[in-house]
Amino acid sequence: MAIQKPKGTADLLPGVVEKWQFLESKARELCHRFNYKEVRTPIFEQTELFTRGVGETTDIVQKEMYTFDDKGERSMTLRPEGTAGVVRSYVENKLYGEPDLTKLYYMGPMFRYEQPQAGRQRQFHQFGIEAFGSTDPSLDAEVVALGYAFTQDVGLKDVTVEINSVGTPEIRAVYREKLREFFAPVKDQLCKDCQTRFDTNPLRILDCKKDVAFGEGAPELLADLDDAARTHFEAVKSYLTKMGVPFQVNTRLVRGLDYYTHTAFEYKAAGIGAIDTIGGGGRYNGLVEQIGGPDQSGVGLGIGLERILLVLESQQANIPVPRPLDVYLIGLGEAAEQEVTTLLHQVRLNGLVAEKDYQGRKMKAQMKSADRYQATYVAILGDDELARGEISVKAMETGEQVLVPLPELAAWIHKQGSK
Amino acid sequence: MAIQKPKGTADLLPGVVEKWQFLESKARELCHRFNYKEVRTPIFEQTELFTRGVGETTDIVQKEMYTFDDKGERSMTLRPEGTAGVVRSYVENKLYGEPDLTKLYYMGPMFRYEQPQAGRQRQFHQFGIEAFGSTDPSLDAEVVALGYAFTQDVGLKDVTVEINSVGTPEIRAVYREKLREFFAPVKDQLCKDCQTRFDTNPLRILDCKKDVAFGEGAPELLADLDDAARTHFEAVKSYLTKMGVPFQVNTRLVRGLDYYTHTAFEYKAAGIGAIDTIGGGGRYNGLVEQIGGPDQSGVGLGIGLERILLVLESQQANIPVPRPLDVYLIGLGEAAEQEVTTLLHQVRLNGLVAEKDYQGRKMKAQMKSADRYQATYVAILGDDELARGEISVKAMETGEQVLVPLPELAAWIHKQGSK
Repeated sequence: MAIQKPKGTADLLPGVVEKWQFLESKARELCHRFNYKEVRTPIFEQTELFTRGVGETTDIVQKEMYTFDDKGERSMTLRPEGTAGVVRSYVENKLYGEPDLTKLYYMGPMFRYEQPQAGRQRQFHQFGIEAFGSTDPSLDAEVVALGYAFTQDVGLKDVTVEINSVGTPEIRAVYREKLREFFAPVKDQLCKDCQTRFDTNPLRILDCKKDVAFGEGAPELLADLDDAARTHFEAVKSYLTKMGVPFQVNTRLVRGLDYYTHTAFEYKAAGIGAIDTIGGGGRYNGLVEQIGGPDQSGVGLGIGLERILLVLESQQANIPVPRPLDVYLIGLGEAAEQEVTTLLHQVRLNGLVAEKDYQGRKMKAQMKSADRYQATYVAILGDDELARGEISVKAMETGEQVLVPLPELAAWIHKQGSK
Repeated sequence: MAIQKPKGTADLLPGVVEKWQFLESKARELCHRFNYKEVRTPIFEQTELFTRGVGETTDIVQKEMYTFDDKGERSMTLRPEGTAGVVRSYVENKLYGEPDLTKLYYMGPMFRYEQPQAGRQRQFHQFGIEAFGSTDPSLDAEVVALGYAFTQDVGLKDVTVEINSVGTPEIRAVYREKLREFFAPVKDQLCKDCQTRFDTNPLRILDCKKDVAFGEGAPELLADLDDAARTHFEAVKSYLTKMGVPFQVNTRLVRGLDYYTHTAFEYKAAGIGAIDTIGGGGRYNGLVEQIGGPDQSGVGLGIGLERILLVLESQQANIPVPRPLDVYLIGLGEAAEQEVTTLLHQVRLNGLVAEKDYQGRKMKAQMKSADRYQATYVAILGDDELARGEISVKAMETGEQVLVPLPELAAWIHKQGSK
């Protein structure tokens, strides 16, 4: 019996993979302009990194990690998100010792053992950025704005940015008590997860989809912000306005991870059903220390590429496709067929996108193949042409046909393209 | 205490990661010209795929795999090589039903639990191609030639292609017996691994580094090839010669994997010590069936990117770096600083690579930062300039300084670049 791919994973095949390449090249190009440089961390890390960096009480750590012992009996985990590894790498490689900010981006697979559904895979892919070493609100704004620019560069419509301030750990400790007081009377009516959250992290009750009604009228964290936190939040909003990033404040936005401080934000898009968040992030001023590094602040974002593609599809966005074949070569007769193999290699080395038949098909089938590949030209070499050192070149759009000296084929096609 | 990356893995940081980007973009561009399309398969697969597809008796399956049970108690394995997953994907997605050949490439991380050394990591990275659906020797030659072209495109020098024919399973069965007869008298003197190989796969004794001397004078498989296999091999060699790919026949080349038929080949490069193989591949006409698919032939190659980089370094090759900053923006005074945040965003959206300070540093420190980033221009906005709606732009190479209207900054810089 044939073996199948693991549940919750995907094969990205030709026809679809080009969309991924498009997203990635847009992300790279954007990060370059914003002076973020790529970092690549390992696919798996020591499990302790995530229990410390993502948080013991989170769903990710409690339920969703791919954890295993390696042959040296060390507990390893496939990375469930991108930030912890980047922070670990920032600390381990002492990037904080450099005079300028550390501005990094990453792209790649992440792994969570969840029930697969549209836009949620066990192996999923994120594009993210992390900026370390500054508490300047202009950096928060830059991060939010870069993510928004990404959604625009790839062609998304109707993207909303929601933003909030989750304050400092001290402010949140006070607020947490207020929330417990508020929810105490209805605690037994909350969903099971939220009954646990009541003790571990009552802020997360606020963004529970099931308990929306119970949250009505809850006290707002924004009211508890101290002057410094308020000033920071106002500055971020002011920059975003000047940058032309459309946003709205959502006082219930707390994000799933516990490490955020001050700015928290999400990108939302209509058209993919209940899960409308395509990405988000925030500032995490305590995380670097938590992972064993110095007291360095950070701010970052993560965007789910599967979700971006879902929205692009539902919005019927036009994703550019790579340039099709410049030329399809056909050899008629044994000598010409052999010559075509060499010629094919030459025109490819000369920069053309080129193909031939490898299945001994008849000329008509080869012409059909050239059509499927949307070849601009078909070049046909018969024994007669071969003897004269020429090849017959047909423009597929116009049907026009000319004889071109064999050694000049690549140059001739290049010349037509630049006309 | 700080958490470290797992042994045998690497952080690819700015300064190094650009070399990886260079290799990858070269590979992508080359594959496009040769009409290979990307496929991405999951990072982990069902363990059975590799026991079947790589082979029960191989070192990979016996000793080196990262195998674990997922939360559903299914045995999963981090892919130790690229071919098995691509073949599984080819079968599962019925790509063999398409009228044209299936020509695929992949790039990404692979995992083997081995003792790390130079050019050998537990998480390593391969670029590979697989072509399914044709037994035409011109396809074998194309695959070999593409890999060679890759080594040339990235700037490697002194690369040798070694090539051999390992025949068909029937031919190899006869040859295996001949080898056993040949090695029987010295069996006890062979290394421990080769004593096992004597029973499981005596061909692999021929490429054991320890037992080179015992292999002298061993019968050659090439002598046992039947007419069809010989004709195929001669055709491949003839094409390679015409394509200008320098190669030499190595009758001892058998490759570590058991699934090869007919063509087997390796790329070797001097300068990285004992492990001089940077990649290789071959034809595998039985593998698709072995994995549960139809009787479709295949041929492919895999190239180790870590090794390519090692050789590039040892050859002191010149790897192009991305374009540095177009402009570094400096604001003097609070109002100008705030304006610079908006301006920065605008010039980035207008296609410039741009940066500013986020650390409240003095002008002199900011100029130094601009220097480190190799900025082409520094644009300085003081409160006076801001009031007049202008910005002072300094060319870092010449020291020349001009005033540019604020809204025209991006356009002005673009214009200089195109002069």
